[in-house]
Parts: sequence; C-alpha cells; structure tokens
Amino acid sequence: MSEKTPVSALDVAEIDSFDHETDVLVVGFGCAGAAAALEAHAAGARTTVLERQSGGGGSAAMSGGEIYLGGGTPIQTACGFADTAEEMEKFLLSALGPDADAEKVGLYCRGSLEHYRWLTGLGVPFKPSLWDTPTWVPPTDDGLMWMGEFAHPHCDVAVPAPRGHRVTADGFGGRVLMSVLGDAVAASDVAVHTDTGATRLIVERHNTARHSTDRSSSDRGSADGPRVVGVVARHFGETVTYRARHGVVLTTGGFADNADMVAQHAPQLVGLPANSDGGDDGRGIVMAQAVGAAVRHMSAGQVGIALVPGMMVRGMIVNDQGQRFVNEDTYPGLVGQAALFHHGLKVWVILDQQAYEEVPEDQRWGVVPHFVAETADELEREIGMPDGALRTTIGEYNRHAARGEDPYFHKTARWLRPLNPPLAAIDVRRGITPPEHGDAGGGGAEVFTLGGLHTTGDGAVLDLDGGTVAGLYAAGRATSGLHSWGYISGTSLGDGTFFGRRAGRAAAGR
Amino acid sequence: MSEKTPVSALDVAEIDSFDHETDVLVVGFGCAGAAAALEAHAAGARTTVLERQSGGGGSAAMSGGEIYLGGGTPIQTACGFADTAEEMEKFLLSALGPDADAEKVGLYCRGSLEHYRWLTGLGVPFKPSLWDTPTWVPPTDDGLMWMGEFAHPHCDVAVPAPRGHRVTADGFGGRVLMSVLGDAVAASDVAVHTDTGATRLIVERHNTARHSTDRSSSDRGSADGPRVVGVVARHFGETVTYRARHGVVLTTGGFADNADMVAQHAPQLVGLPANSDGGDDGRGIVMAQAVGAAVRHMSAGQVGIALVPGMMVRGMIVNDQGQRFVNEDTYPGLVGQAALFHHGLKVWVILDQQAYEEVPEDQRWGVVPHFVAETADELEREIGMPDGALRTTIGEYNRHAARGEDPYFHKTARWLRPLNPPLAAIDVRRGITPPEHGDAGGGGAEVFTLGGLHTTGDGAVLDLDGGTVAGLYAAGRATSGLHSWGYISGTSLGDGTFFGRRAGRAAAGR
Repeated sequence: MSEKTPVSALDVAEIDSFDHETDVLVVGFGCAGAAAALEAHAAGARTTVLERQSGGGGSAAMSGGEIYLGGGTPIQTACGFADTAEEMEKFLLSALGPDADAEKVGLYCRGSLEHYRWLTGLGVPFKPSLWDTPTWVPPTDDGLMWMGEFAHPHCDVAVPAPRGHRVTADGFGGRVLMSVLGDAVAASDVAVHTDTGATRLIVERHNTARHSTDRSSSDRGSADGPRVVGVVARHFGETVTYRARHGVVLTTGGFADNADMVAQHAPQLVGLPANSDGGDDGRGIVMAQAVGAAVRHMSAGQVGIALVPGMMVRGMIVNDQGQRFVNEDTYPGLVGQAALFHHGLKVWVILDQQAYEEVPEDQRWGVVPHFVAETADELEREIGMPDGALRTTIGEYNRHAARGEDPYFHKTARWLRPLNPPLAAIDVRRGITPPEHGDAGGGGAEVFTLGGLHTTGDGAVLDLDGGTVAGLYAAGRATSGLHSWGYISGTSLGDGTFFGRRAGRAAAGR
Repeated sequence: MSEKTPVSALDVAEIDSFDHETDVLVVGFGCAGAAAALEAHAAGARTTVLERQSGGGGSAAMSGGEIYLGGGTPIQTACGFADTAEEMEKFLLSALGPDADAEKVGLYCRGSLEHYRWLTGLGVPFKPSLWDTPTWVPPTDDGLMWMGEFAHPHCDVAVPAPRGHRVTADGFGGRVLMSVLGDAVAASDVAVHTDTGATRLIVERHNTARHSTDRSSSDRGSADGPRVVGVVARHFGETVTYRARHGVVLTTGGFADNADMVAQHAPQLVGLPANSDGGDDGRGIVMAQAVGAAVRHMSAGQVGIALVPGMMVRGMIVNDQGQRFVNEDTYPGLVGQAALFHHGLKVWVILDQQAYEEVPEDQRWGVVPHFVAETADELEREIGMPDGALRTTIGEYNRHAARGEDPYFHKTARWLRPLNPPLAAIDVRRGITPPEHGDAGGGGAEVFTLGGLHTTGDGAVLDLDGGTVAGLYAAGRATSGLHSWGYISGTSLGDGTFFGRRAGRAAAGR
C-alpha cells in the first residue's frame, strides 16, 4: 500500500460490481477489530474482517496484556479488594485527564463487570493473585496489578483498588489475549481476509445533482452527507472492493508509525520509537477524515519510559537540573508523560545501593547504573548537572524522607527512606532491553498515539458538524477513546475491546 | 451565524445564480486579509473582502503591534545593529520550534527586508529607537525591541539582534497597523462587505457521475477533487452567495474562542481567556476541513502570561514546588508556554525590594506583591509551598548570582544579583490589568491558538493527500504558520501580513 494511493473516498457510482459483500466490514484485526467482529456476528450480521498483515493480532498482540477492569471483579474479590464502578470512574477521570471523555469513562466503568465476564467467557485467563510492587509487567503470572491507584493525587479522589487485570502469561500477555480472541473469531463464521489492506472508503453521495431552485437550500447543508458503503483494499497488488451493507468499522490503530502525521499532530513524540506492530500508519484515521470525520486529542501520546519502576520508586527521578517533578510511586506511564512532555526526557533515576539491591535481579532487566559516586556533589559533577543541583535535591528529599514525608510530591511513606552514599544515577535515555521486547526504549521511551477519530460511545464516527458519518464506526487507537492527556496501562486493550464490541453491535443494527 | 449552520460544502450545482462575483474573495479583514486583498488587487484581480464584524481590524487591531522583521532593516541600522536574514532564520528556527516550518521560516526571513519596505511604503510607522529592557509593550513609542534574541539557548545559535519592530503608537500599536492597512484597502477598489460572515464553501465536484468501467479507476482517486468556487455567507440574517473566479483566501483567524475546538485539539488552553476580538471561532478552519483540507499543530498555543517582565527578569519565576524552570530573561511568551504547558500556570514571581523598585511605576501595570516576608522560610510558608522549597531555590540562586552565574538556566549576568530579604511573591494566576487591555490575564494568561490549516509557502491549502485544494488559499492564524510549539511576539502580525500577501498573489494568478 504505497503512500501514493489517494485516501479520498471513491464514489460508489464508479464501481461496476463489488468483489465482496457483507453486512459489517471490520477493517483491522487487533483487539478492537476482533471484539467488533465477534459482537457484530453475535448480533446476527454477516461479518468480514480485513487485515493487512498475514494474520491477526496487531499491536495488541505485542502488548503486556493488561486490561483495566474493576467494579468488583472476581479477581479483585479473590485478592481481597472491594471495588465499585463509581470509584473506578473517579480514578480514571483523574488519571486519564484533564478532560477525559466522561461519557465513555462512565460507560466503560459501569460496563466493566459485564466486559470481564465476556472476556473470561471467551476463555481469556486471569489468575487471582496480586503483584504488589511497581513494574511494567510482573515477572510472575500474577493476574492483578496496581496501576497507581494508591498514588497522589488519585488516592485523594477515589478509594484505591488494584484494577490492572493481566492476562495470564509467561511474560507479555497480549499474545494470549489475541490468541483467545482469534480462536473465537475462527470458531465463528466471521470471514477473515488477511493480506488485505484497506486504502479508501467507498461512499454514496446524495444531493450532488441540481435538485432545487429554492434559495434557502444553500443554507440547509447537504441534507444527508456521504454514506459509507464499503472500502477499496489492496490484496497482493490487486485492487479489491468490499460492499458493507450495514456499516464499516475502522479498527486500524493509531499513527505512531507515520512520521509525517506525528510531526504535524503530536510534535512531542517526534523521533521516538513506536510501540506498535509497525502498521500504525494512521491510514484509517485519514480515510475517515476524507469523508468529513472529526478527530480530537491528536497531540496526546502514551509514553513507555525506559526505566525500571522498582528502581525509581525506591529512589527518585530528576530532570536535567536535578529537580524532582513527580511522585515516583505513580503509574510509570504518567511519569513517562511528565518526563517527555515537560522535561524532554532528559531525566535520571537516582538511587543508592540498598534501593538497587532491593530490586530482584530478574526485575532489573539488565539495567545497571551509568554513574556511581561517593557523594551527591561528585555524582552531579559526573553527570554534568549544575553545581548544587543534586546536593540540594537529595538533601531536601532525605530531610523529609527521614520523617516519612514528601511534602513536594507526596510519594507514600512505604517508599520513602533517606538515600545514603554511595549514590548512583541511571540515564533514562540510554534505554533498557526488557525480555521479549526487542530494543525497547531506544531514546528513552517507546510511544504510541492516543488521539484519533471522534466517536460516540457506540462507536459512531462524528463529522465536523457534530453529526455522525452514516455507515461509519470506529474503535481502538484509531479513535480518541477514554483518554485525553493521561494514560494508564490496560486502558488501550480495555478501551479497544470494550468500545470495539459496542461499535460492532451498533454497526450490525440496521 | 448560528452554530447550527452546517459547515459542509455546498455543491455549486445547487446555486441558481450568485449574488456577487469577484476574482479573489478574501474571507476576514484582519492583518492577513488586508494584506491578501491588497496584493491580489495589485496583481490585477478583482477583489472582495468579507468581514463578519461591522468593520475591519480583527484580532490584529487589538494586538501590541509588534512585527518581527530583520535582516538589516533601516530601523535596526539606525539603532546600530547589524543583522542578516541567515541569523534571523537561525533564531526563529530555535525560538519557534521544535519543528518550526523551515520552508516558511526561510521565505519569511529572506523576504523580510522587502516586507519591511512594503509595510513602510503603505505608511506603517516605525521609530528608529531601541527599548532595551524586557516588557510586553514599551511605555514609550520606541520602535525596536528585543524579543529574547540574547537569551539562552538562542544566543548560542544565532548572533543576537533586536527584531521586534513595533508600529509607532501611544500604547498598543495594532490599531495603527490596521488603520494603515484599512486606509490602503479603502483607497483601492477592493470591495469590502462588512457584517458578512462566511458559513460554508461552495465547491464544484468532478467525477461524481459514473464515467468509467475500468476497474483501475477505483485505485486512481478522484482525478480532480472538489474545486472551491465561492462561499455562502450570512448578511443580517440573509443568505448571500459569492462566486470567486480565481480563488478564496481564508483569513478567518484561529479557534481560541471556540471552547469545543479548544477542548478537542488544545486541551492545555482550556478555560483560559482568549486574546482575540471574540471572533476566533475556527469556522474558516472547519469549513476548509469539510472540503478535505489538512490541519497541523492544532495543540499549539501562544500564552500571554500575566506578569510584568521587568519584575520577573530582576527576580525569578518558580513553580508550585519553588523550582525555577526557565531563564527569566527569555522572551516572556516562551516563559508563558513553559509555565502553562509544564507547570499548569501554578507559578510565582519572586523578587526583593530592589528588584521591585527598579521597575518604573508606569511599567508595573498596577501589580503589587501578594506576599511579603522577612525570610524565604516565612515566604514559602505564607504561599503554602513545601518546607524548604524557596529556601533552597533562593539559596542556590543567590550563591551562583553572587558570582554572576546561573548554571541552572543561564540567565545573562546583566540580570543576576542575589535577592536580599525582605522578599516578595506575586501569584501569576491573580492576573494583571495592563493599560488599554481590559482584564488581561484572568486566570494567569491570555491565549490564542497557533495551529490551523496546513498551507504551502504560497498559501495554497493542502489536502489530506498532500496535494492542494483547488481554488483555496489561507493565511494568518487560520493556518499553521511559521511556528510549531514556540512563539515570539511579532510573528503573528508578521506571518499574517507576509503570507497573507503571498496567498493574495497566488490566488490572483489564473
């Protein structure tokens, strides 16, 4: 699919006959696409999924496999935690904001128990055991994780409960999730067309002929805008056309792999490696924009910062001037956003020997300090920080930590302890190489985009007038989902599957 | 012009006859619109300007009146400064970035001397005298200002020269600029239709009829997309149609006054008052998007932070934790962006009595300290900062300032001096009320948007495929201009008039 292929929609009048017909056409076979297809099919619609790669999975299959669920799931209950949809909602509005999509967050939290049952009903495994310390992915197969719910300021807003439900796996769980969803699709009569990349939407336009001499018509708008009735795709160099009688669901992912789109819409992510399957080229977003779809939050991004959370939480994270800027016990993804968006990723993890050694070797992911020194003065000189930068910051931190306090950023007492020489520093931009994850963190972080198509809670794509684009639905990272600026792991697989299901059902409705 | 009026384009086939015809139709009569109209007219095109208000001026008329010009203007030369287009270009790429539009910056800098001559040829007055200290607008009628060219890190990148050319005025100069441009338009035979607000574009579509049975046509794109041939406007409740034989130039301003667009595209600006004439509703941007136009940098914003630069530069600016975050001698607009985007505007100006008294009373704009204390400890307690926050920051600042150094943020020695008790703090969120500027700074800053339509250096509007939308041009804050994230005053009037002229000329060409 060359960049040269235009994204502008094709008028259905230009099509002689379609190569394929279906009721609901799902474009993309990641977690959102699989969920959409299963639910469209369950609603009685003939359903076809197009996938550009030779098999399903998408970026979801490469993820850690956390799904943010709550409201009192059996896993939470088994681990001894009470939870309600209301507290979950308060937390997400706090952590995903400012200006998270309140309607979507409400739907998501109130529907969380049912969504848990749907996932487990398909066979998605979760183990009822808690992993209790900060990490990206537990080295065990524990099924429940904290996602910063106990951290300031969220703990003042919502009663904390762990809600990171991690698909049981030996390592990253995304592949297990996608294997279960893929099996469910295979067991249905959803048709899956792989190696088939959608390039353009096909629309039916009304009101293009001169049909009125009434002057007022010029003020009325095209009474009905374009209706999406299918897509043009490429399959091994051939053009193939699909008619979707009920609707097209775009689940094509974000645009982290499209350098031009990133530069235009999310300049702060420029130059960082994408956390994706390489196919997050934004094509679905632009195809929809070409028929008048609205987008939002295009500058937002998830930042998988290249550090070991267990080291950071036991020490501190500082910027170029030796200044702390966040409570180190908050969700590491929020640390990543603060580090990139406010400090250009010029950040260091500072710790002492005890902090380093308390992190079990299998959780260190090979990270060793880049600088070690007998005093803070020496450490700041070695790093090249201003004279006094680390000395004053560590002095202040230690003075308060000795009393179990952090009046600056409110890290909880559990992780507060004066840091004692010798001291060490880890340059976050040097990256880490976590197991099974290639060269993650080159440049200090891996990113993906959070902005995209503006959709309703049912996945209908909104147009520039705030109406809906007839026949067009979307879910997953092709859309702006629950988030605005903030991000908590588990809300991509969660948002993708939850709103993918809703989009599939809505598209199936006549 | 109700929000209910659809923005989707009207097909020309629905128009019986146009109420008005012209060659070039300019939508909006701010600085970009005036410049576009003058140049389209000079190029021989019949030109009409639509303005929603009852008179021209737009947000430009309310501005300070700085135009960023350089490369050795007569004003710079008279004040004893040498300058080149190359150094100007290096500075702007540094100050307006990251990822400022290098092509536009290059055109702008190389064309700056000619643009100066065009402006002065029309009668725009500039006085050849330098105002030498940091301020938003000089209290004198001095015509040349520094815009942070000597500040770190820009001074390491480009040879500093003052390039803020301020239209001679008793106070804010924007009204003088717009008066001169308005007089020039009035003296021409450009037609100006006031009280006329454009609501939709009118397009001619090709390829909507079935014209091919060749399968490959489905992969070719609509060989020619929609061509913009006019606009629908409202004039005192009546619908009026305009045909533009050569082109439409959108100079409709940004979207700072559209709360919904701000929330969707520039969430960090939410809730802050707009620095505008109240009409920056983004309508022109969305009208163009409805015919397939691309936008970029929609999250970028200018931040007119509510502080007196002369106080800040003599003291320091700190965040909620008492941390400095910027060299206080950089352009105050860059301080504003850092304060809002990285610190949520929870910032304070800290100064001592000498610093306060050194600012002449006519430059204090009525600002008096909100907290005064005998020691840093007492001051931080009064403000409610963490114990030690100001004590350590002021201690470090003073220790280095005594040696004329600022290893943290590299403020120049001219403004470095230890701060001596008693100390004072100004809460930036309490705002200021500069003369002639109403209630500027409620909430700590006034903002406007910097993102918008993606245009070429000639003002042609680009579509989602990277081609141009036939017949459509744009300039000014309706476009993403020179900037990406950074902002220096003078680049809005500068960008608007410079690229407005280019768009007008391009639209006039057949």
